[in-house]
Amino acid sequence: MTDFPLTLAQYREAYASGALTPAQAVREVYRRIAAHDDPAVFLALRPEAEVAAEAADLPQGPLHGIPVAVKDNIDVAGLPTTCACPDYARLAAQDAAVVARLRQAGALVIGKTNLDQFATGLVGMRSPYGVPRNTLDPALVPGGSSSGSAVAVAAGLVPLALGTDTAGSGRVPAGLNNIVGLKPTLGALSTRGVVPACRTLDCVSVFALTAADAFAGFSALAGFDAADPFSRPVPVGRPGPHPRRIGVPDAASRRFAGDALSEAAFDAALADLEALGATLVPVDLTPFFTAAALLYDGPWVAERWEAIRGFITASPEALHPVTRAITERATAFSAADAFAGRYRLAELRRATEPVWQGIDALCVPTFPRPQTVAALAADPIGPNAELGTYTNFVNLLDLCALSVPSRPRADGRPAGLTLIAPAGRDAALIALGDALHRAGGTPMGATGAPLPPPSAPEPASAGAGEIELAVVGAHLSGLPLNGELTGLGARLLRAVATTPDYRLFALPGAGPRRPGLVRVEEGTGTAIATEVWALAPEAFGRFVAAIPAPLGIGTLRLSDGTTPKGFLCEPEGTREAEDVSRHGGWRAYLAAGRG
Amino acid sequence: MTDFPLTLAQYREAYASGALTPAQAVREVYRRIAAHDDPAVFLALRPEAEVAAEAADLPQGPLHGIPVAVKDNIDVAGLPTTCACPDYARLAAQDAAVVARLRQAGALVIGKTNLDQFATGLVGMRSPYGVPRNTLDPALVPGGSSSGSAVAVAAGLVPLALGTDTAGSGRVPAGLNNIVGLKPTLGALSTRGVVPACRTLDCVSVFALTAADAFAGFSALAGFDAADPFSRPVPVGRPGPHPRRIGVPDAASRRFAGDALSEAAFDAALADLEALGATLVPVDLTPFFTAAALLYDGPWVAERWEAIRGFITASPEALHPVTRAITERATAFSAADAFAGRYRLAELRRATEPVWQGIDALCVPTFPRPQTVAALAADPIGPNAELGTYTNFVNLLDLCALSVPSRPRADGRPAGLTLIAPAGRDAALIALGDALHRAGGTPMGATGAPLPPPSAPEPASAGAGEIELAVVGAHLSGLPLNGELTGLGARLLRAVATTPDYRLFALPGAGPRRPGLVRVEEGTGTAIATEVWALAPEAFGRFVAAIPAPLGIGTLRLSDGTTPKGFLCEPEGTREAEDVSRHGGWRAYLAAGRG
Repeated sequence: MTDFPLTLAQYREAYASGALTPAQAVREVYRRIAAHDDPAVFLALRPEAEVAAEAADLPQGPLHGIPVAVKDNIDVAGLPTTCACPDYARLAAQDAAVVARLRQAGALVIGKTNLDQFATGLVGMRSPYGVPRNTLDPALVPGGSSSGSAVAVAAGLVPLALGTDTAGSGRVPAGLNNIVGLKPTLGALSTRGVVPACRTLDCVSVFALTAADAFAGFSALAGFDAADPFSRPVPVGRPGPHPRRIGVPDAASRRFAGDALSEAAFDAALADLEALGATLVPVDLTPFFTAAALLYDGPWVAERWEAIRGFITASPEALHPVTRAITERATAFSAADAFAGRYRLAELRRATEPVWQGIDALCVPTFPRPQTVAALAADPIGPNAELGTYTNFVNLLDLCALSVPSRPRADGRPAGLTLIAPAGRDAALIALGDALHRAGGTPMGATGAPLPPPSAPEPASAGAGEIELAVVGAHLSGLPLNGELTGLGARLLRAVATTPDYRLFALPGAGPRRPGLVRVEEGTGTAIATEVWALAPEAFGRFVAAIPAPLGIGTLRLSDGTTPKGFLCEPEGTREAEDVSRHGGWRAYLAAGRG
Repeated sequence: MTDFPLTLAQYREAYASGALTPAQAVREVYRRIAAHDDPAVFLALRPEAEVAAEAADLPQGPLHGIPVAVKDNIDVAGLPTTCACPDYARLAAQDAAVVARLRQAGALVIGKTNLDQFATGLVGMRSPYGVPRNTLDPALVPGGSSSGSAVAVAAGLVPLALGTDTAGSGRVPAGLNNIVGLKPTLGALSTRGVVPACRTLDCVSVFALTAADAFAGFSALAGFDAADPFSRPVPVGRPGPHPRRIGVPDAASRRFAGDALSEAAFDAALADLEALGATLVPVDLTPFFTAAALLYDGPWVAERWEAIRGFITASPEALHPVTRAITERATAFSAADAFAGRYRLAELRRATEPVWQGIDALCVPTFPRPQTVAALAADPIGPNAELGTYTNFVNLLDLCALSVPSRPRADGRPAGLTLIAPAGRDAALIALGDALHRAGGTPMGATGAPLPPPSAPEPASAGAGEIELAVVGAHLSGLPLNGELTGLGARLLRAVATTPDYRLFALPGAGPRRPGLVRVEEGTGTAIATEVWALAPEAFGRFVAAIPAPLGIGTLRLSDGTTPKGFLCEPEGTREAEDVSRHGGWRAYLAAGRG
């Protein structure tokens, strides 16, 4: 099957056209898994016949008929959860919350994937079930801890896979296999039914071949779960225009372990970033790196111990020796140390907060340099730690991150790029990540297939939880009050005229000149140019509260059929005002030299 | 000086009339301190001449000329900070952040007050500097840990004092001395310059003779402090109308240690609450009590140890034996225990969240029963723990609380009452707390002076950060859409008519009938009844976003001179509508049988 789909859009198209059925897809997925011939990728596969039967009657959700692999520290009812520790294995009676959501969305859960034992590691080498082959270069480690999930996607076996990410486990293996890894905001995806690594830092993460697919997975799975004490109501948002001000490591913060090829690849990616219109802002990453050091050298390792307290106490010898050595460091830390670490982290969070006032996102390498199986065999700890240089701080500092393939190194080995933003801004990273991915020019994962052209963007509209606001006057892009919008984090969605039912007046008064829009009897007015912006509810509330009379906010009718909130004027306020409707908009009126 | 002021309003009046100068006040305060003749109240007093000199040139802030006592775990520049541990004493080079705010507000800091050593205790007995006399009954403990601050206020020495509160130290001594203690939302007042007890739970608290004075202190001191990693931007708000739905312990959650007098006093207070119009909602306090148990029996005690790690390690024998015994329990807890406690607390927070959907505040006794010096001498631990029954859970669950005097027990001993609300709702407790205080009928503290009549309430307006919204139709109290406002946490501020410049129309259409308000030429309209509600920006944003055309939000002109946001209608939407302006408001129109 040469034109077998790889991306979600391709699956959707194949299903919609009738070229493929979900049951046929299941057959091909299992054939590919067999052909890939790496027994270290899946630790458990559901029987093909069972999945095929399920495929005959799937919910019509956003992931209808999409085969998905699940990391083996996430419960799938009826399959064992091993965490790559045979003696720990237990049959899951219930789906984890995210797996239940997968099924509700119409996805086909096909099996459980290998990992660094108990999700402790960034290499994929710490599993008694073997090491999944790196899909690009068998000399390289596959990356971990979500090794099997990343490899399953990179090899084109499944278009979507779930990992987990506490210290980089959802990003490092993405980078090492030339795919996309989204590490969502803490609490956006429920961790109920996931075996914890560090409960205060754990996320379920999403692997895909494209940024759009990773976001589709994220959107389908995100949602508040009252039964998970660490779940939070996080707005999903919608991918919008590119963030413009991109922080990059300043000269002293660049860490490539002396690897000139990786450094050159990163510089090429920064050139791509500038070509995409970004302004690069050098950032001192010292407080970020300092926070990262807390994770393995500080008391947080006790969370890993606590997660398996009963097991590690009863059967320490059942653990992988490296995992055991790391986890048992926990016993050196007292409760007072744990609190001291928490205080230190609170200070470091505060210290990094000002950085985010000057940038919209941070762009770093996913790792300083790729690591080889040989290097890890020689030293299982040091190279693993190095891989986490740019990932370890992200969860601690309550950030979200997207790892995308960028231009490969001169020797062909992968060089991942990671975009990072504050909690809740996941969606804001997608469009820029996709553009950088395309600029990198690599095929998708290890499939050899080129990235399909970007799907026609959906008409830009506000994301879940956002509010659309149509502006008609001094708040338009480039006009004097536009900064009030951008200062509130608003983003421009589209420029659309109203229906021809309005009149526009140039209001008298001091300050920046402002128009007033009034709806009139249907068919007796003019279409007036607007810009539609998206704001978070709080920002919108503050914005509305600051609007002076006679202006206010009502509901506008736009020519694209939408009815966002928008500026209106009390007619009593237009008594002395000039009717400027004939210009068709405030900008045109100003351009005509009348403002 | 018989008419020497006791409350802030009395101070303000005396200063304004010229009957008193701040320098004269200083003289009288020092005279009273001497006359009170209890050397265990103040651990350090600034020289009277120095304070009097300062009084001659004070900033004109909200606490202008108000003498304030400060608990001796809060730094005051130039005075030693002892935490009631002589060997720990060190001269403070800088004011704590709250003390700096006191000075900016015009207050006169006069000295430092005694406490249970390192703020560990609820009794006031654990200090090498002696036990402050309970101001009501010398057989009773003064309560702690903020013993000296509470006694200084109750005795009428100062109208305002700062304490700290981690487990009840700002509430228990208030209850035991018949005064008001406000335990603000965590992070509302900076803890920079305060010697920590449990840094994740510590608050600076406010003691005063009246709820209004406690709130005035809170308002003057609250504010985000970027240099304190545990500071949070908390809206101060304004005391509004009484919360109506008041949770009370259900039958199984009542804990009075078998003391019938305390139980009867609490029941009398509940009757007062009902007489004030509250609806009592029985609440199962089990998850609250379970959270409380974590504090001293769980790993949080390690925060107390961590706070003085160097000192307690070097000089354990320098500690009060009880304080040392409690603090050294910390060493039994591992980092894994600390994280396990944090997980358990997250679960309990989640378990208590639904409670707050059914109630606006919780009302509990401040303590099960008052404790005597003799009882504590016999057992320094047990009765102390009992005093914290209703206070220990508050900080852990991120709640705020106000302790007020209520009807005393039949034997004349004090029975405090505590109102509790979720973080950020401090202001919402004040008016009800004041009403309950008045219903209790006791004099102020131990001064013998009656509570002055409530000062003419300021015209109710929105608090800092809140937005005022005038509604005119179906959102008025009791009308079909009012639940949309209350569901968003809005609170009613006042009922005010517009200026006579509006017309009100009964709009056609399905659903709850709604009016449309339109401003017309000045003097040609009618005054229309409105209600002004206060909303947080996010709630306001969501509310505005949901308003359907032809209604919208503009700026209204009200007869009290204010210009809040409010409902307006596009005139185009009134084309088919009946003009009902002659009724003067929507409620009157409905009452006239026309709706």
